[in-house]
Amino acid sequence: MSTELTGSRPGGRTERNRVAVLTATLDELAEKGYPGLTVDAVAERSGVHKTTLYRRWGSAEGLVAAALLFGIEHRWEVPDTGSLEGDLSAMNRELTTYFTDPAKSALPLASVASSFQSAKAADSLREYYADRHERGAAMTVRAIARGEVPADTDPVEVMRQAAAPVFYRLFISREPIDFAIADRAARAAVLAAKAGAFAV
Amino acid sequence: MSTELTGSRPGGRTERNRVAVLTATLDELAEKGYPGLTVDAVAERSGVHKTTLYRRWGSAEGLVAAALLFGIEHRWEVPDTGSLEGDLSAMNRELTTYFTDPAKSALPLASVASSFQSAKAADSLREYYADRHERGAAMTVRAIARGEVPADTDPVEVMRQAAAPVFYRLFISREPIDFAIADRAARAAVLAAKAGAFAV
Repeated sequence: MSTELTGSRPGGRTERNRVAVLTATLDELAEKGYPGLTVDAVAERSGVHKTTLYRRWGSAEGLVAAALLFGIEHRWEVPDTGSLEGDLSAMNRELTTYFTDPAKSALPLASVASSFQSAKAADSLREYYADRHERGAAMTVRAIARGEVPADTDPVEVMRQAAAPVFYRLFISREPIDFAIADRAARAAVLAAKAGAFAV
Repeated sequence: MSTELTGSRPGGRTERNRVAVLTATLDELAEKGYPGLTVDAVAERSGVHKTTLYRRWGSAEGLVAAALLFGIEHRWEVPDTGSLEGDLSAMNRELTTYFTDPAKSALPLASVASSFQSAKAADSLREYYADRHERGAAMTVRAIARGEVPADTDPVEVMRQAAAPVFYRLFISREPIDFAIADRAARAAVLAAKAGAFAV
């Protein structure tokens, strides 16, 4: 089968279109935000016909879902500061910047928002955080090796607990967040872990 | 000024319309969920003309915002089980039921979802949680009086920390929740509070 027919190898037309469309989606999000995202605008910006977009991604929410995985995949460098509290604080400060800096927040905000509108976007968010949990477990694994927390501490639960208060303020109680709040949530997770709260 | 002109006293026409519209909004949400909510359907169900609805509530998101405050206002009985962990577990179990039971979840899910679409809905959610925080502080105030946690523990931070992991799984990592998870998050918050994580 020729690559003209399959078109899906890296560098092929399908792959070039995919990159053009998802890049255009990220650019549109950065410029106009999620409520303003339309398939038509992404089609125009990418130069790919909108019937192709509807066929492959279904909707604006489908584009956001794909862009989330495309835009962030494999980019997260898990913090390694020498202490669990330092690592979790670094993670929480990144989150805080990522969701509040207007230059960076369009995609993450769109990802959470679109997950309420589309099962595909919700699946994409779930997949993204499962990947983060898997990578971020290293922070607690190292802390166990250093003797900072009990050996039976659940590494993913530590991450959830550290990050959760930041998200709670962002999307539930709708209160402001800052680095002091990020640090306090990290510290609380470490203290709870030391006390055995996250034993498997 | 006559009540015919102001129309806003309890029992007046404006108040009757308000109750009819917000009740219809809650019923529509319960039957069809948030993505299916339209101003037209609420107008038809309530018998109030849709131009009145648009003028007063602006949009479907505006209706959800008003229904959130109308439907839950002053209804929460703060748990009082005799221990902080018992109280926070009860709160978290209520949350878990409230967001996962199909018979109850339509309004709370719509409230969070619509807060991404509308500043009015976000304000309403913020107001709702500020009220919950104010009431729920009693749980930690009692625990301080019993000597369970340090006297300088921030009562609202304890609530945020206890509830946050439930919401994180619901709306960020999109993982399932259950009573065991609700209880574990409550216990972690208590252990962190005992260790001084939420000192004011």
